[in-house]
Amino acid sequence: MFNGRAAINYFTLSPVNADSFKNIINMLLKKEEIELLDNRYRALFINALSGFKNANLIATCDSKNNSNLAIFTSVFHIGSHPPLLGMIVRPHSVARHTLENILETKHYSINQVNEAIYQQAHQTSARYARQRSEFEAVALTEQWQPDFAAPFVAESHIQLGMELREHHHLTINNTDMIIGEITYINIEDDIVEEDGYVAIERIKSVVVSSLDSYHGTHLLSRLTYAKA
Amino acid sequence: MFNGRAAINYFTLSPVNADSFKNIINMLLKKEEIELLDNRYRALFINALSGFKNANLIATCDSKNNSNLAIFTSVFHIGSHPPLLGMIVRPHSVARHTLENILETKHYSINQVNEAIYQQAHQTSARYARQRSEFEAVALTEQWQPDFAAPFVAESHIQLGMELREHHHLTINNTDMIIGEITYINIEDDIVEEDGYVAIERIKSVVVSSLDSYHGTHLLSRLTYAKA
Repeated sequence: MFNGRAAINYFTLSPVNADSFKNIINMLLKKEEIELLDNRYRALFINALSGFKNANLIATCDSKNNSNLAIFTSVFHIGSHPPLLGMIVRPHSVARHTLENILETKHYSINQVNEAIYQQAHQTSARYARQRSEFEAVALTEQWQPDFAAPFVAESHIQLGMELREHHHLTINNTDMIIGEITYINIEDDIVEEDGYVAIERIKSVVVSSLDSYHGTHLLSRLTYAKA
Repeated sequence: MFNGRAAINYFTLSPVNADSFKNIINMLLKKEEIELLDNRYRALFINALSGFKNANLIATCDSKNNSNLAIFTSVFHIGSHPPLLGMIVRPHSVARHTLENILETKHYSINQVNEAIYQQAHQTSARYARQRSEFEAVALTEQWQPDFAAPFVAESHIQLGMELREHHHLTINNTDMIIGEITYINIEDDIVEEDGYVAIERIKSVVVSSLDSYHGTHLLSRLTYAKA
């Protein structure tokens, strides 16, 4: 396999850590070097640069109630009033079925991934046939609520029912952005504290680095509201 | 203070964990209950529902080279080819100066926050006067590169130089979405592995839950490419 790093022309001694005893070498890439990277190398590399990502299972169904389940690491907070979350769907990915179902039914669910199910969650990224439900394929439990038009993942401790609000096609790289409103929340009561803080570290929610690396977390500290 | 939870009408026994011996109570909120939550409670609560968020310092300057630094937890990956990252800027927040500078100079930097500087990073969210540089206020080191039009944070181990590509105003909740291309990468060489994977856990990158809770991470495992 082509080693993408061969394309990187120059390195520099970091002035950042000049006061440490360790000789730290930094990689410096500009636009030209980034463009020369091998595709698979670039995907792993660039996906780590924004930091850790959340892991959520998006559950949908089509108009005939065939269910679909896919892991996403691109869910992002847009606002809390109204409660809005965005997500990015890549073109031609297996997540395409998710997008088609959301546009068809206007409903989907977001289910936080925890340490007990992260391997099954990752497995949903395999390219299963359109007819095959990933719930069955990876052995996660499809759960329906009487008054919501998409399935949930029973093994998830935070289940969000979403209604589609906006769909933007991002022409810059041919991806789609979905904006949904949280209209249904099913959450374990004992992780919600008096002030509204949710201790998601206690339900062992995982984070993802790059494309395939899963991590647990531990609390450093809750900080007070910053004042000038 | 009004306890937002008083607005929540009903609870349910979770069928999710019916096989466990612990009696788990779930909170169930629909649109009506969510709307009744107290504002501060809702902000803490809703901000945790999408899972852990990355923590990045966005550094900018205005046309007179007055620098600005602000922590963001809404940076998200859009694509790796071209390498694009998005971020959400809330209306009337202290991050407003960041947005103004980006629109003015078309350049900004994204600097990953690690355990050594997360408290200083959090402090940048205080409401400093327009003229005051947060670099000085929180004692982080402003670093310039000869060929990039925005400052970097010297203490960060992954520094990204960004060029503005798109600006969308999201009318749905009056926020702004910025899309930028990574055109400059300065990263510690020894965390980049042969296949492009970046071991950001080794530079102790932090994650954030809700608005103010900081967490370290530990590797569970890297999984292989999922196949059907």
